[in-house]
Amino acid sequence: MAIELFNNGTHQCLMFDDLVDDSVGDAVQANQFLIVDHGHGALIDPGGNMTYNGLLMEMHNYFPPKKLKYILASHPDPDIIASVNKWMIHSDCKVMISKLWTRFVPHFCSGDNSLGRVTGIPDEGANLPLGDCIIKAVPAHFMHSEGNFQFYDPVSKILFSGDMGASIVGHKEADTPVEDFRAHIQHMEGFHKRYMISNKICRYWVNMVRQMDVEAIVPQHGRSFVGKKMVNEFLNWIEALPCGIDLITQDTYRVPV
Amino acid sequence: MAIELFNNGTHQCLMFDDLVDDSVGDAVQANQFLIVDHGHGALIDPGGNMTYNGLLMEMHNYFPPKKLKYILASHPDPDIIASVNKWMIHSDCKVMISKLWTRFVPHFCSGDNSLGRVTGIPDEGANLPLGDCIIKAVPAHFMHSEGNFQFYDPVSKILFSGDMGASIVGHKEADTPVEDFRAHIQHMEGFHKRYMISNKICRYWVNMVRQMDVEAIVPQHGRSFVGKKMVNEFLNWIEALPCGIDLITQDTYRVPV
Repeated sequence: MAIELFNNGTHQCLMFDDLVDDSVGDAVQANQFLIVDHGHGALIDPGGNMTYNGLLMEMHNYFPPKKLKYILASHPDPDIIASVNKWMIHSDCKVMISKLWTRFVPHFCSGDNSLGRVTGIPDEGANLPLGDCIIKAVPAHFMHSEGNFQFYDPVSKILFSGDMGASIVGHKEADTPVEDFRAHIQHMEGFHKRYMISNKICRYWVNMVRQMDVEAIVPQHGRSFVGKKMVNEFLNWIEALPCGIDLITQDTYRVPV
Repeated sequence: MAIELFNNGTHQCLMFDDLVDDSVGDAVQANQFLIVDHGHGALIDPGGNMTYNGLLMEMHNYFPPKKLKYILASHPDPDIIASVNKWMIHSDCKVMISKLWTRFVPHFCSGDNSLGRVTGIPDEGANLPLGDCIIKAVPAHFMHSEGNFQFYDPVSKILFSGDMGASIVGHKEADTPVEDFRAHIQHMEGFHKRYMISNKICRYWVNMVRQMDVEAIVPQHGRSFVGKKMVNEFLNWIEALPCGIDLITQDTYRVPV
């Protein structure tokens, strides 16, 4: 069932967190998002083939899927947009993704469904018009993907942060925002230490986010950080975390004997 | 048409480089590989939905696709394994990929096709038995993917290097190995500077490869490096290249106005 993150009557943000069957543990839980503004809709990170049917049906309750304007993709991982071929067939949507990946997205597709429908976001980001609002594509390169964007909604003040802030939990836990930050660290520390590229990059990102008016950080896996106090707890934590290549030495690169 | 990289009668290495329709420029050219040893077959980086039909048909000339033992995936990008759902249905193959990505691969699939069939390669790599030989999964983490492997074949002495050494050219150019290294740099410099994570990582990798007996570096995009002299030219070049986060400053992370 959809979780309403924001609704002021003309602008809605919805989160779908239970469409991956994570009961057997083979597939990682993932959140998908729908933003509707004055009857215009965009999906953020709609997910893989596994979540397509469920998302299509759930979405019908809020917005006609055929009228979808955008798929906003943080990066081209399977849990982000492996369903893109189906969305291309079902709607006239355009895909917005880092310009680093525009020539890779067609590999998800059969035939020429994607021809002329994948637009590259330049490294510096972009303001994407949706209904009467804009969605900001905010640079998040190397967290983890080399060409990576987060999507900031100035109406709800939600930063849809992709893998940044992701926690590895089941969909029941994902239903509710983080309440005890310290207790939550165990669900995100391993992921951030290996999938985020370097502390230097995390610090640049934190410096940028501190300039923004962010009421919630909502990642693509697991639980959200709601309220300025909790957002700051996350920023303080990630700012100080050594990760990725910071922790890698020559020992990692040896031919197996 | 397949290009025979190696054949001693019982062990064959084949490259398919013309299955992406790169004529309109929307999709990046990509190479797929088949290794057959004593009647046992493995595909390396079989590609996306776009190349599936062509690869299935071409492969029939060398090996029955239904009998495929492994899909060896360097990482989970769409041009690497977006076709995995189809291969899961068509054969009983197992997928070998970094343990970082085992829970992401099912997102390519519909239903539970991948259940119990995706095996994680540990960070230190592995020796994978195929027929009478082994294929070595060699650590190549952060080049570009955080969990990334190259596949070394000790019989042919080919290092299937994934994105390392990739060049952005059309499939006609990909047919022939690099002849003039200096003239080739223009086709790979931009890619390596942005998609490879850091010079530190490249240097660790070069140190490892220098310990190996490599006759050819064969990347997943573009032209190959054949012979020890050309392999060394590539190693010397990449060892000295600043890339990825080496070139990134706070200027990259600013909210678009």
